[in-house]
Amino acid sequence: MEKTPGVINERSVGLVNTRHLIFEKFTFRSGRTLSPVTLAYETYGTLNRRKNNAILIAHALSGSAHAAGYHSPHDAHPGWWDIYIGPGKPFDTGQYFIICANVIGGCSGSTGPSSINPETGKPFGLDFPMVTIQDMVNAQMHLLSHLGIEKLLSIAGGSMGGMQAIKWAIVYPEMVNSVIAIATSASLSAQGIALNEVGRQAIMNDPNWNHGDYYDSKGPDAGLSLARMIGHITYLSDRHMHEKFGRRFQKEDLPLSTFKNEFMVESYLHHQGNKFVDRFDANSYLYITKAIDYFDLKKDYGSMHEAFANVTANFLVISFTSDWLYPSFQSKEIVQALRANGKNVMYTDIETDMGHDTFLLDYEPLKKNISNFLKREFERISKE
Amino acid sequence: MEKTPGVINERSVGLVNTRHLIFEKFTFRSGRTLSPVTLAYETYGTLNRRKNNAILIAHALSGSAHAAGYHSPHDAHPGWWDIYIGPGKPFDTGQYFIICANVIGGCSGSTGPSSINPETGKPFGLDFPMVTIQDMVNAQMHLLSHLGIEKLLSIAGGSMGGMQAIKWAIVYPEMVNSVIAIATSASLSAQGIALNEVGRQAIMNDPNWNHGDYYDSKGPDAGLSLARMIGHITYLSDRHMHEKFGRRFQKEDLPLSTFKNEFMVESYLHHQGNKFVDRFDANSYLYITKAIDYFDLKKDYGSMHEAFANVTANFLVISFTSDWLYPSFQSKEIVQALRANGKNVMYTDIETDMGHDTFLLDYEPLKKNISNFLKREFERISKE
Repeated sequence: MEKTPGVINERSVGLVNTRHLIFEKFTFRSGRTLSPVTLAYETYGTLNRRKNNAILIAHALSGSAHAAGYHSPHDAHPGWWDIYIGPGKPFDTGQYFIICANVIGGCSGSTGPSSINPETGKPFGLDFPMVTIQDMVNAQMHLLSHLGIEKLLSIAGGSMGGMQAIKWAIVYPEMVNSVIAIATSASLSAQGIALNEVGRQAIMNDPNWNHGDYYDSKGPDAGLSLARMIGHITYLSDRHMHEKFGRRFQKEDLPLSTFKNEFMVESYLHHQGNKFVDRFDANSYLYITKAIDYFDLKKDYGSMHEAFANVTANFLVISFTSDWLYPSFQSKEIVQALRANGKNVMYTDIETDMGHDTFLLDYEPLKKNISNFLKREFERISKE
Repeated sequence: MEKTPGVINERSVGLVNTRHLIFEKFTFRSGRTLSPVTLAYETYGTLNRRKNNAILIAHALSGSAHAAGYHSPHDAHPGWWDIYIGPGKPFDTGQYFIICANVIGGCSGSTGPSSINPETGKPFGLDFPMVTIQDMVNAQMHLLSHLGIEKLLSIAGGSMGGMQAIKWAIVYPEMVNSVIAIATSASLSAQGIALNEVGRQAIMNDPNWNHGDYYDSKGPDAGLSLARMIGHITYLSDRHMHEKFGRRFQKEDLPLSTFKNEFMVESYLHHQGNKFVDRFDANSYLYITKAIDYFDLKKDYGSMHEAFANVTANFLVISFTSDWLYPSFQSKEIVQALRANGKNVMYTDIETDMGHDTFLLDYEPLKKNISNFLKREFERISKE
């Protein structure tokens, strides 16, 4: 890993490569087995001799293994959580060994619906097995074995990343010292499911989707773009949108008497939608949103209380007051169930107008919470 | 108007017909003139000799002139606000003369994009003039002249209907004794515009939309249905959706490992979407949502204070605590601007979990507020 001047600043992890781990086979919770299966991942920092400084970062719906640094000195943007990962940053690469993998079912290097099915020589499309949060966790477990890590200092994630983090602590308690669960939930609300469904419908309504079989032709770009636009509305708050765009027009001089006129908020969403189709696969969007919808600790374990009964990790749970997609009360439910089980939990409901996406923004209260929690946890286990 | 037994209950206005007023010409705010123009309307109750008991009901985005009663004894459902309009109901047809017209630009009898352009002999489609809330009000004004009504006891509406009601009081102050503005706003928020835009995009993404020229072929049903699904999410609250659907599945026995499985909330939205395409025109959806987006009292009059300077009507303003599409603070802005101008305003922020759509539901606090306000207003003007 080398540093380059220019676009890459002092506190970046610098140039990084995505690596690929290939397992011989992987059995999904649905019972289907695929062989082989690839997991794309990146690491930042160095694993110490005691192998007790490893932190797994779990990404959200549209994330990838590329969480920090740059793939090339010419990249306009670093990895998706670069603000939080690097030398002296909350996930301090001077201290910790950070791992991030693209989820199974994804489209950024890990095996997913757009991957070639070795049995047919064609992309899986809808023949890909159903993916669950537990499948994502199990795939990550293979990666940790490969890296020789027996216990994580921490597993951290926001939104769907938080679901994976919680699931880790429940399914592999002996492998998790601590969990950082940000803006997440033990199960999506009916409204959240509804919003995911209209996004999926936007994709499936697009004739170019062709029941998931579009890899030889023009894909469902318009549908995927619309799904992303719907998503973006839910990632921001009403207030933040008001402050960012208000009711301003993109071009003030166009007459109102046409359909050409656009509010700034409309241009912003169109821009977000258009950008997304260049980097994301529509079928992955369907599979991953379904994984989110089906995640349900209460249902899977009988109750929230039972879900957390065998957890041994210490928890940092963070919600954002203006997050209406993963509202604070859902984080509080997790905290209450953990505390009712006598577990060690720190909880902060961070006051912010910026909505769900706060976890991706440069936000000092979030940085401090993560940084302090990790320091304390690392001190604790270093004494063991 | 005759009463029939069976489906039509005692407190219904009974069987009603939609009538059609044809004006020779109508000039839109955009400057375009159409000739002729039709306005579909219904009336309930009797205009008294002093002609001081007339109430105009303004409908919301998806409404029609059919606000109360039944078109046939076989109708499964009465008009859209039948709960509120009828003998002994808040809009008491024993006392008041109620009028409701389909908005211009609509698709339920009034001239709109699906109407035949006499110049071409084909439907207007996107050649229909841009429609504003003020155009809707102006068309209603023609109807009142036709009915010989010089001054309304009240004008009432929820959502976009509230925008029309407020606009009436501003533009024709001498014709309006009172206004009942429910769950409305002086201008939509950026989030509201964004949500309307993703609905429009769903329609315009549908290849059957064909730039608005679809009247000779299969229309953009999938797109319009999706727009309606998005809309429905915003009409309910997270809490109400949770209570109504929770995370229950439509069919509990289907395996999770398929895309066939549906949460109840998904079925509900699909059902709402499918029903909607039978009664609504996609181009009207585009035009009317644009009219809502462009409505902006601050911008049109320089400030909220100036907007209400010449109003003489008494106001009843009602918002709902769980309405996130037209949040309470937007109603409070209207109330503050009216009070700063020394106007007579009653304001209630009704505690409810049912979100924006509360104004369409059988909700006692809303009924009482409307009923009492109208009684007081009718007494006041009866003494004049």
